[in-house]
Amino acid sequence: MEFEDSSPHGSHQVVTVGGGFGGLNAVRCLKNAPVDVTLIDRRNFHLFQPLLYQVATGALSPANIAAPLRAIVKKQQNARVLLGEVTDIDVARRRVTVGNSKVRYDSLVVATGARHHYFGNDRWEVLAPGLKTVEDATEIRRRILLAFERAEQESDPEKRRAWLTFVIVGGGATGVELAGALGELAHHTLRRNFRTFEPAATQIILVEGTERVLPTYPAYLSTRAAAALLRLGVTLRTGAMVTEVKSDAVTVKNGGSLDRIATHTVLWAAGVKASPLGRILSEATGAALDRAGRVIVGPDLSLPGHPEIFVIGDLALFRDRMGEPLPGVAPVAIQQGRYVATLLRRRLQGEGLPPFRYRDHGQLATIGRAAAVADFGRIRFSGYFAWLTWLFVHLMNLVQFESRLLVFMQWSWNYLTRNRSARLITSSPPPP
Amino acid sequence: MEFEDSSPHGSHQVVTVGGGFGGLNAVRCLKNAPVDVTLIDRRNFHLFQPLLYQVATGALSPANIAAPLRAIVKKQQNARVLLGEVTDIDVARRRVTVGNSKVRYDSLVVATGARHHYFGNDRWEVLAPGLKTVEDATEIRRRILLAFERAEQESDPEKRRAWLTFVIVGGGATGVELAGALGELAHHTLRRNFRTFEPAATQIILVEGTERVLPTYPAYLSTRAAAALLRLGVTLRTGAMVTEVKSDAVTVKNGGSLDRIATHTVLWAAGVKASPLGRILSEATGAALDRAGRVIVGPDLSLPGHPEIFVIGDLALFRDRMGEPLPGVAPVAIQQGRYVATLLRRRLQGEGLPPFRYRDHGQLATIGRAAAVADFGRIRFSGYFAWLTWLFVHLMNLVQFESRLLVFMQWSWNYLTRNRSARLITSSPPPP
Repeated sequence: MEFEDSSPHGSHQVVTVGGGFGGLNAVRCLKNAPVDVTLIDRRNFHLFQPLLYQVATGALSPANIAAPLRAIVKKQQNARVLLGEVTDIDVARRRVTVGNSKVRYDSLVVATGARHHYFGNDRWEVLAPGLKTVEDATEIRRRILLAFERAEQESDPEKRRAWLTFVIVGGGATGVELAGALGELAHHTLRRNFRTFEPAATQIILVEGTERVLPTYPAYLSTRAAAALLRLGVTLRTGAMVTEVKSDAVTVKNGGSLDRIATHTVLWAAGVKASPLGRILSEATGAALDRAGRVIVGPDLSLPGHPEIFVIGDLALFRDRMGEPLPGVAPVAIQQGRYVATLLRRRLQGEGLPPFRYRDHGQLATIGRAAAVADFGRIRFSGYFAWLTWLFVHLMNLVQFESRLLVFMQWSWNYLTRNRSARLITSSPPPP
Repeated sequence: MEFEDSSPHGSHQVVTVGGGFGGLNAVRCLKNAPVDVTLIDRRNFHLFQPLLYQVATGALSPANIAAPLRAIVKKQQNARVLLGEVTDIDVARRRVTVGNSKVRYDSLVVATGARHHYFGNDRWEVLAPGLKTVEDATEIRRRILLAFERAEQESDPEKRRAWLTFVIVGGGATGVELAGALGELAHHTLRRNFRTFEPAATQIILVEGTERVLPTYPAYLSTRAAAALLRLGVTLRTGAMVTEVKSDAVTVKNGGSLDRIATHTVLWAAGVKASPLGRILSEATGAALDRAGRVIVGPDLSLPGHPEIFVIGDLALFRDRMGEPLPGVAPVAIQQGRYVATLLRRRLQGEGLPPFRYRDHGQLATIGRAAAVADFGRIRFSGYFAWLTWLFVHLMNLVQFESRLLVFMQWSWNYLTRNRSARLITSSPPPP
């Protein structure tokens, strides 16, 4: 079955693979353009990934940070959604393979993002899950909550201590936010929930390879973030590397010394590896990949020799005017999606567009309740006001009004009560 | 490891198995009583089962209708929660086995409820899932949403029709509510979501063995419910039985005729089978079981010859003064839990309590948006006012204030917009 048969012939066919921040913004900005848009995704919803750590720690439900793709584009007459995985791209015939179907394109936007990277230690994945999908988040939530349950049933103090030790690998925004939320959970939310131990005895260890957490932020904000984490009972191990992950321990190398930490819960927030579509594109077009598998794109985000193929978001490596690669964050993907849509509109009118340029509106990270650090270029601040800003920025970016309202209510409630009501252990066999 | 060692000696040990409506109410009503209470459950949360169909149809998130057991009892100093499955009960030594531990009891309350019953056709379970757990609900949600996705990608009209046909087996409250919600979803929420078919073409078939839906309600309300279902596009097949379930069809027997309905989505809302703890109790105490495996209890909900063992809720068969068994609904379990708690308090004071008596405050079922039928004995009504009553009763029963507020907001929003934002296909492999 070829889907092109059901499309109106003649109009320009835009196929967008991936409904994340990049792909979705490309699709939406093509509203009312004289094109047919097909949005292909393996999942039926857009996910607000920056808040996944809130699901992983029981503060929000998956549906609070997700919106059905069909609902988002239902009023966009020139767009349709196709649920499925793209397994091949035929750049000569301009077709992508989705299951048993082939979908023809005139322009192709690939925005399938990235997964985790275990630096050659893929066997660690089952022991130290990362945080990219809804299933990742509910699995991490399950492990965290089960660890407390096991601690409650453990009478040996040393074994209990291992259940109450959590190691987070990677001190970027995800690792810092996860550590902060876990600190909140242990020190506040779970207070008085157990009878055989004090949740405040929980050890949360954040391991970061460079000399400070949030290494891409100004040093001043890293210091503030570190202080906020310490207040939440998080132990920082900077300049340290994880050299081994086992089901009952991790080994951390700090300079010349090796340290074994007994734990059953290791969470991975380090390193990303680009989606496998990058390699497929590279083999088909000769486009170069970087070490993480990201596709190196040109000034207009297209591939060399293939002006009809664009790669955006976390799957793309774009260097700014200083030669620095742009970070894998939502604002970059959003701006790239909008840029490609604008470029396609211009092209159809026989016009061009200057090269893509990222406008950096700043970075934000939140650490537990009412603490955040923000870096808006000349304005840098931390603490309560940064936290409010973070709240506002995140809420405004939530796709649907309803989600905004519900998330705001849930947050207000959590803030007032330090409650995390989505503490459900699901999809699990009963504990042994 | 025996947990009794960590309990204060001397005080009366109450062990409650199951944190549903029955068990949880027994525990909470023992607050400040001179006893130690251990609540054992396989799950770490209480589930508001009557609203599971809202999760199955994408209107609510699991966390909206669940509350962590530890949060519920955290301020109850004499109670502790133990996560685990009870696999054996030693009535002579008064111990229950949980994993590798044994927990001693002086009084035992068993409230582990029921699962589905496929009337000897257990192979149907994978083809026609029932609706008892959070995982059931998200699995049904996944199947329903994937069926629409498959229909969108199917060009053969007959095959598409099969993907757009949903069969619900069982016309009790669960079946009726599920059919109504599915009608809302297909005819309103999903409108304009697809490009190759109209969701209004969806066929929803409700199969009921007796001559009317809601057979336990007065006939007048069954008629009203049937009319409301018809308005939502639901086809009723009363006096009909499902004789075969396959992955691409069900066979329905109606009198002498056999009818084959092509469908890929069959949902089971008929028949319940008691938890396996019923059989364990029966073998240990000689207590009789009914055909569904429910334990036949005495006037005070205890077992014959074992005044220290109580069975309540869906696992118990209690006959009222007319000899009629009480239905397996939340209000019965709640009242039984409270009764047992009161009885235990009285016994500790050397007093007794008259036999358990169920106060029937009525029945409610909701059919889609703003329609419900209610039977409060002398007061019977249907339509908008019944729907408001249903909303009120359900909200007041939600355990936590936060849940009430959030659910109310989500419902209000759904009501105004006919939206169902929790339409997530999760825990699934990508479609073929």
